[in-house]
Amino acid sequence: MRSGKIYSSRVQDLTRSLTKRRIEGVLLMPGPNMRYFLGFHTKSWERLTLAVLPTRSLVVPTLDYEKAKSLSAARQVFHYSDEAGPKEALEEALGDLTTTIGSHGVEREFPLWISELLRDVAPGLTLTNVSDSILGMRVVKDADELNLIRRASAAVEKGIVAAKDFVRPGVTETETMFEVERNIIRAGAEETAFCVVQSGANSAMPHAEATSKTIEKGDAVVVDAGATVEGYHADITRTFFLGEPTDRQRKIYRLVLTAQTRAVECIQEGIPAQEVDRAARRVIDEGGFGEYFIHRTGHGLGLEVHEPPYIRNGNSEQLRPGMVFTVEPGIYLPGKFGVRIEDNIAVKEAGYANLTRLPKNLRWSTLRA
Amino acid sequence: MRSGKIYSSRVQDLTRSLTKRRIEGVLLMPGPNMRYFLGFHTKSWERLTLAVLPTRSLVVPTLDYEKAKSLSAARQVFHYSDEAGPKEALEEALGDLTTTIGSHGVEREFPLWISELLRDVAPGLTLTNVSDSILGMRVVKDADELNLIRRASAAVEKGIVAAKDFVRPGVTETETMFEVERNIIRAGAEETAFCVVQSGANSAMPHAEATSKTIEKGDAVVVDAGATVEGYHADITRTFFLGEPTDRQRKIYRLVLTAQTRAVECIQEGIPAQEVDRAARRVIDEGGFGEYFIHRTGHGLGLEVHEPPYIRNGNSEQLRPGMVFTVEPGIYLPGKFGVRIEDNIAVKEAGYANLTRLPKNLRWSTLRA
Repeated sequence: MRSGKIYSSRVQDLTRSLTKRRIEGVLLMPGPNMRYFLGFHTKSWERLTLAVLPTRSLVVPTLDYEKAKSLSAARQVFHYSDEAGPKEALEEALGDLTTTIGSHGVEREFPLWISELLRDVAPGLTLTNVSDSILGMRVVKDADELNLIRRASAAVEKGIVAAKDFVRPGVTETETMFEVERNIIRAGAEETAFCVVQSGANSAMPHAEATSKTIEKGDAVVVDAGATVEGYHADITRTFFLGEPTDRQRKIYRLVLTAQTRAVECIQEGIPAQEVDRAARRVIDEGGFGEYFIHRTGHGLGLEVHEPPYIRNGNSEQLRPGMVFTVEPGIYLPGKFGVRIEDNIAVKEAGYANLTRLPKNLRWSTLRA
Repeated sequence: MRSGKIYSSRVQDLTRSLTKRRIEGVLLMPGPNMRYFLGFHTKSWERLTLAVLPTRSLVVPTLDYEKAKSLSAARQVFHYSDEAGPKEALEEALGDLTTTIGSHGVEREFPLWISELLRDVAPGLTLTNVSDSILGMRVVKDADELNLIRRASAAVEKGIVAAKDFVRPGVTETETMFEVERNIIRAGAEETAFCVVQSGANSAMPHAEATSKTIEKGDAVVVDAGATVEGYHADITRTFFLGEPTDRQRKIYRLVLTAQTRAVECIQEGIPAQEVDRAARRVIDEGGFGEYFIHRTGHGLGLEVHEPPYIRNGNSEQLRPGMVFTVEPGIYLPGKFGVRIEDNIAVKEAGYANLTRLPKNLRWSTLRA
């Protein structure tokens, strides 16, 4: 949780933007948005936890009451025991809303069971999906948020460097994954968000997971890891070769590296997000491997590991200072190997800042077998 | 995914039970229920994935199309690209439902954004929360499901034994956690569900996580780990002492062990779930530590790590053969230490089977410092 007036000012901004749509307030579930507007973070999913904005009332199970009072920007916290159930606490938190008719915003994931509870307690409330408005606010990061992403990035880098030291013929993908995660946590991350280690032919499947396959001489090894600091994500990929790469591996690596570098270098305020995707795709198309670059070039980073802006064809949203996203082109040759290189970039008033300081040249990426 | 007619027979059973409530079919999201009724398991959350029962139609993003065709019991799979969006594929999967008026069941977590999509595509459909009916089916496990939980349990046991070998003065809780997880995966689990290692005063907070605290001589060390095999969970806790326990530690350990043993021994078909909770609580109350046993005695295990039956006061649901749940009483002395012992139990036609084979006597639980 951050100090100061950041939470009240965010709530004010949200309320102002929604008033134009005749939406009077917002009901938030546990997750990135509750953390953004109230600084409150909980994993209580089975029981009702709900924030009411703009009044900043919070309903929590008794289990979370002390934490909610000390570690949230809520003005009032209402709690309930398992015996009593949440209904009365919810009524108190809603106050006048239980008897008025009006529209309130909720997140796109808002679940049926809470809608049912509200229909009972506050039958005059209509629920409207306002996720886009909230994500539109979250897309621009302030200096403190950038700092948290930088710290998360530094931790992930230490994990990837640990993989570089750990990988040798005979270790499994899963063992390598645990080595990366262990080092990410040791480097001060709050949590690892995910970690994928793929070697040899496995590296050609960009959506799979680490397996019990042993890594062998000649393999390409894709290491893609994410972590959080105070909820903010970094997400970095490097591709290694165990032993001197073949000519084909070299060629593909250099093509991906050029594509990634070109895409990063074109980043500046005002260009459409899809321009960054096109810059990467153009290099790989011209190299003759366009059909093997089978995903978007990147995604935004913040309180979620995938959030706007999406760096893909068709997204004409203009880049603004404070946006943070991945640039991660890849080439995947089915049954053979894959290469992906991913950095985290912040848009600045002049150009951009690459938050990822890890090397990515072919020499650095070649491991002794 | 299992072979044979298991999925069609489950869908038939569900349809039959819902017909009485005039609910004609069910729409399922990715998660335990989709896995239960169609054998299909995906982590695609951002994009629409939806199963339609009883027709067993499945809508997936193109990314998952091959997997859905080969690894699901769907009769028809409809897919859509990111460019096209899910609307047309959803219309095809719904078929007549797009133009009829009727009630369909959904899960309690069914999100607003899919409800909105359905309102557009199939305006005559009313959505009803049928999670209770589905959980009511899942609560009794067949022999194959029991077998998967047994295998998950065996993997978790190997992880806990690894902790016993690994813990020495100076290692951190987090390092121990990774050692446990690494060994759980090595032992053949599909995924670790969670792993909590808490030592010294931390062990008195049953909802916290592993920290960077080093484990020291004299500490109680609670290791609570879960894992899955084909989606089915085991969840086991052991408490160790690093060095000879003090008289107080001995006393608390023996009290928890007696409570846990008594609770397990009372398990048989026909008794209410709360009887098991009472059996454990009675021992701890009589020992004078009732106020420090601050959670329910257990929860069901299956495709979710917490599911019915809940072993808590007020649950008069009768135990039936095939139910599987944890028995995990604990005593937590704030600022000092905590002890919890947790086994996984299956109700049998005669008595019960303890799926957890790990020792739990004080000698076994005492580590050389």
